[in-house]
Amino acid sequence: MSATSGQNLDALFMPRSVAIVGASSDQRRFGGRPVQYLIEAGFSGAIYPVNPNRAEIQGLKAYPDLRSIDGPIDCAILAVNAEDTQGAVEDCIAMGVKVAILYGAGFSEAGDEGIARQEKLVETARKGGLRLLGPNCMGALNTYAGFYATFASALESSIPEAGTIAVASQSGGYGGYLMKHLFLRGLGVSQWVTTGNEADIDVGEALYWMAGREENKVILLYLEGLRSRDNLIAGLERARRNNIPVIVMKVGRTSAGSAAAASHTASLTGEDSVYDAVFDAYGVYRARTTDELLDVAYALSKGVLPKGPRVGVISISGGVGVQIADFVSDAGLEMGEVPAETQDALRALVPHCSPRNPIDMTGLVTTNHDIMEKTLDAVLASKAFDATLIFLGISGSAPSMAGPLQTAIANACARAPDQLMFVSITANSEMVREYDQKGFLVFEDPSRAIEALSAMRHFARLRETAPTEMIAVPQATPLDLPPAATLNEAEGKNLLAEHGIRSPRETVAANADEAASIASDMGFPVVVKVVSPDILHKTEYGGVALNLRSADAVRHAVEKMAATIPGLLPQARIEGYLVSEMVEDGFECIVGTHLDEAFGPVITFGLGGTAVELIKDTVCALAPLSGEQAHRLIRGIKTFPLLDGYRGAPKYDVDALALAVSSLSLLAASHADQIASIEVNPLKVLPAGKGVVALDAVVQTNIRSK
Amino acid sequence: MSATSGQNLDALFMPRSVAIVGASSDQRRFGGRPVQYLIEAGFSGAIYPVNPNRAEIQGLKAYPDLRSIDGPIDCAILAVNAEDTQGAVEDCIAMGVKVAILYGAGFSEAGDEGIARQEKLVETARKGGLRLLGPNCMGALNTYAGFYATFASALESSIPEAGTIAVASQSGGYGGYLMKHLFLRGLGVSQWVTTGNEADIDVGEALYWMAGREENKVILLYLEGLRSRDNLIAGLERARRNNIPVIVMKVGRTSAGSAAAASHTASLTGEDSVYDAVFDAYGVYRARTTDELLDVAYALSKGVLPKGPRVGVISISGGVGVQIADFVSDAGLEMGEVPAETQDALRALVPHCSPRNPIDMTGLVTTNHDIMEKTLDAVLASKAFDATLIFLGISGSAPSMAGPLQTAIANACARAPDQLMFVSITANSEMVREYDQKGFLVFEDPSRAIEALSAMRHFARLRETAPTEMIAVPQATPLDLPPAATLNEAEGKNLLAEHGIRSPRETVAANADEAASIASDMGFPVVVKVVSPDILHKTEYGGVALNLRSADAVRHAVEKMAATIPGLLPQARIEGYLVSEMVEDGFECIVGTHLDEAFGPVITFGLGGTAVELIKDTVCALAPLSGEQAHRLIRGIKTFPLLDGYRGAPKYDVDALALAVSSLSLLAASHADQIASIEVNPLKVLPAGKGVVALDAVVQTNIRSK
Repeated sequence: MSATSGQNLDALFMPRSVAIVGASSDQRRFGGRPVQYLIEAGFSGAIYPVNPNRAEIQGLKAYPDLRSIDGPIDCAILAVNAEDTQGAVEDCIAMGVKVAILYGAGFSEAGDEGIARQEKLVETARKGGLRLLGPNCMGALNTYAGFYATFASALESSIPEAGTIAVASQSGGYGGYLMKHLFLRGLGVSQWVTTGNEADIDVGEALYWMAGREENKVILLYLEGLRSRDNLIAGLERARRNNIPVIVMKVGRTSAGSAAAASHTASLTGEDSVYDAVFDAYGVYRARTTDELLDVAYALSKGVLPKGPRVGVISISGGVGVQIADFVSDAGLEMGEVPAETQDALRALVPHCSPRNPIDMTGLVTTNHDIMEKTLDAVLASKAFDATLIFLGISGSAPSMAGPLQTAIANACARAPDQLMFVSITANSEMVREYDQKGFLVFEDPSRAIEALSAMRHFARLRETAPTEMIAVPQATPLDLPPAATLNEAEGKNLLAEHGIRSPRETVAANADEAASIASDMGFPVVVKVVSPDILHKTEYGGVALNLRSADAVRHAVEKMAATIPGLLPQARIEGYLVSEMVEDGFECIVGTHLDEAFGPVITFGLGGTAVELIKDTVCALAPLSGEQAHRLIRGIKTFPLLDGYRGAPKYDVDALALAVSSLSLLAASHADQIASIEVNPLKVLPAGKGVVALDAVVQTNIRSK
Repeated sequence: MSATSGQNLDALFMPRSVAIVGASSDQRRFGGRPVQYLIEAGFSGAIYPVNPNRAEIQGLKAYPDLRSIDGPIDCAILAVNAEDTQGAVEDCIAMGVKVAILYGAGFSEAGDEGIARQEKLVETARKGGLRLLGPNCMGALNTYAGFYATFASALESSIPEAGTIAVASQSGGYGGYLMKHLFLRGLGVSQWVTTGNEADIDVGEALYWMAGREENKVILLYLEGLRSRDNLIAGLERARRNNIPVIVMKVGRTSAGSAAAASHTASLTGEDSVYDAVFDAYGVYRARTTDELLDVAYALSKGVLPKGPRVGVISISGGVGVQIADFVSDAGLEMGEVPAETQDALRALVPHCSPRNPIDMTGLVTTNHDIMEKTLDAVLASKAFDATLIFLGISGSAPSMAGPLQTAIANACARAPDQLMFVSITANSEMVREYDQKGFLVFEDPSRAIEALSAMRHFARLRETAPTEMIAVPQATPLDLPPAATLNEAEGKNLLAEHGIRSPRETVAANADEAASIASDMGFPVVVKVVSPDILHKTEYGGVALNLRSADAVRHAVEKMAATIPGLLPQARIEGYLVSEMVEDGFECIVGTHLDEAFGPVITFGLGGTAVELIKDTVCALAPLSGEQAHRLIRGIKTFPLLDGYRGAPKYDVDALALAVSSLSLLAASHADQIASIEVNPLKVLPAGKGVVALDAVVQTNIRSK
């Protein structure tokens, strides 16, 4: 699917008129529900129920078919079976419909016949200029337009009020589940869309549209895979530019999950770490559970972010205060320091209090509301915290206590209006609502309050940093590479050299004597490696001999390889023995590129060495990267200090390394049609000022190559 | 505090009579609440309210003082101020009371005066044979004895039914909060105790008592610090032996939390990783949040554990199914495989279903209960899963649907009675209770169901493994070591040699010429290191020269050290230059011991090398360890494969390493009064069969030493 984000989805989210093909009088059916919802919500545009057997549907005039409707139709809901969808789509095109919403299942998710049916549908729609949502989806809604084109049961009890949270979900089931939970928490939705099979409109395009709406304070995405990398990135870029936080639930994180995703949808599931790299680049917050997704959405829905990392805790239980301090530290936030004069003021209120953060004013604050108010006054006046959490637990939820307590807290907060205030309380949902409506963020378990605050802080920091710019992929003339092949080491290194990454001086010898003579000319010490397109991990088969210091040692090493490798790998073609200068005193890294199924060219970086390999301390990013972006990538590994003068060790040439990483990423991205993968392992980083040297290179080309 | 676990706490948890000193008619006061609770619960023993101003308290005869009570008193609740506690304790002793529960604050948590007051109290009680709970605590209860010696407000609404969950908490506030949440979830408590300042009875002793009770299916601990290592370990050992799962919430995990804990209680807060090592040794499950603690407690409260790791998922939403597969994988569980014939049976029920795990039977299962029942019958008959999770989400909670759905699920489960069944549903608490009472474990968010299942699996595995035996600390004659000193390298290595850990051949030279001569006698290559008690990290100050291959090189290295080190470290006393044989071809490890404030001698192990150091891949355990236990410890680091023949590298001498670790742990444990810490860094592990060599050793002694 090509990038279509430029296209406008106004007809999907704010049409002036809507037809429902397969409209039903039965409000439990998927052709009945949207009619009911549209009427209940008072949709201001025209509603055209289509049903050949009825003159009237739910009080509205019904039409026998689309073609007999007498006005312009922006949007058509096709609440029909797979078999009837093609005809309905053709009718839509004939009537100039802009977008059709396809509820029916039985398409690409349902075997070869369904795939063929969907392909035909897409071809027809594209030719006719009709956009499609679905098939196999639950539709969309936009509370700001009073437009409800869905059969989601979450709307059954009542049509929700307009809110600040937008939702785009590939799964209808999960989308409906999420919407219901938002409503249960009293959170309002702006737009909501489920994209199902994504035959045309995908979740990235929906995101792009939502990210252009001023009412949106936060956008929630549910992803199982990806149809268009470009659509997703265009949407993420727009959200980032417009300072609208994006929270994603991406499933298929683990290999067990991935296998399930592949069987569930026809989507491509990219490697999960590549998704993480993309989310990271655009500041997307990834939630692991629905609880977390909802908590963070709630915290962001008010549109206020903390100005700094300092958290203040006022707890009626010292034990819980300590626990909260743990959560604060885990979350990378800080426990703010209470100034001495504020501590004095608190001691004057309650002599046996603990006036340091976490502040413990004892249970008195829940029974003596004056003390609560004065405590908060003192704490808020100190401006020592960027956010304050009051833990009330099971106290303060007794009906007789709650009112005055809320008033006390609200009074103090009114005198410090720019404060971010969290309340952790065990109470029923009405009482939680009361606290919430006074402007406090309410969470039962304090760990979840701190987790949400941490997410808010993430988005606050994001606003202080420049957005990631994807650098353009340079146009490049095709390389002279064979298709679907593995280049031998010398060929691989040549390719690197043409792109500015040098290798040791080296020459291929045919046999032991020639190797000894080449080594003598080159000067000792040297390295000898077997040359074969069939051996990827030479060390494991005795194909590498390091630090050879004489012609005899070289001769002996080659003879040994020639004698043993054919026994271990009878199929391996041996093309010679590479004699290289020995490069010492560097730091070994791994740099590689590969083509991710969902995202295309990706560059990966990590330190070399077996310990690091075991720990898998690597980072990746979409290619290409600028030199500066490569620098940031490199600094993202845990063991980066080893390159940077750790414990008196030398500083290595990180600038040259960043250039090499950038250069490889450009090579992979501008020749993604030809290069399947490049692995430079090790890339030796020499001390600062001395550059980098590729000691080995494996390049694999695409079947499409050349 | 010495170990007192042998003492019996029957008088605390199941007294035959109880006196309440400071008893009140006002049920909101802390002297009124326990009287009310005891009466409401129908405590079968004698209740003696003590109050000099009343003839009757809450309908019971009141006594002017303890001494005028005319029967034996097992337990006395002292609901009096700090000032009046000493006198009341003396009265208790006079009357032969066995245990006193001290509510009042103003003791060790409240400055010097309070500390002195508590010390006096403890001395009096110990002499008089009286056990103390508290002071500054919320008391205790035992539902099985109808005994409620607490003023916790969690009991206000009603006296709870007897359950299978025991709770021991150092914090009264948290203990009360936790109990209230257990009740809100409909979970019953057996015993509950808060230990406050732990002047005498501590949480470990309470644990020991609870671990001896048959009714207990799970014990919850809340820890801020530790009074007695031995009591805690005795309690953990008993629980382990009796197969009673222990879940702990230990706060002060992080440095921010630790600082708060130290200011909140007078407890010692040990290093958090040492707590983890202890929890690990006894199979304790550590919860991070209250939600997690409650979830796991709930799952365990029924006393059934999964027999294996295979999870089956039946979801009405494919998307949520994939998500659950992620959670299963994260938790180290397995997605079970549905046999082909079961898949056929499922396809026969719903042609478009996804019959592989996660099974998606579409929304049909929630509307057609017959399909749900037959689906479950097929799945359970396959015996492919050890636990099955049904995700119903927002479906199936409509009152009209819920009843038949529950019946369908219950019918199928009744035909497979040994199955562990989870239901994930969004419903109100009454409906959750209905599902729960049919024998299903009910969680709203499926991530929490899987987290709880993972904890259950942890305890199931624990039952399959032998308990950890703490090996005895050998009696040892005192070592000849100076107090509060740092031994120089040669002294440190001598100590190691006496305990079976060899060092390289080496001799101390006074100057460059002597060093050169020693090296010539020894044979090259050699290593030269400066000898100084004041330089811990020799490498950083140029105090180590490796791989010296001639007398000249040795002379030059010593001259350079002598010339440069005094400039860098003017205060350092240089006692000579150690000339050692060069040990090659080994793997560098770090082994150390230190005295933990809470737990005493601890042994730590990790691989050496700067990369590993950055990653902090170390493990620790309480000393001493047997050789076998040391083996297990060593295998616990992530990078262990590097020692074990990773990628064709040699296998190193792990047996010798384990012996050395065990030997050091015995040395540290049997001389804990003398040795503050030992650091062997690096300990070089040679190839298998060749042993280990200590290349450096720093030993610090205690102020008490000798």
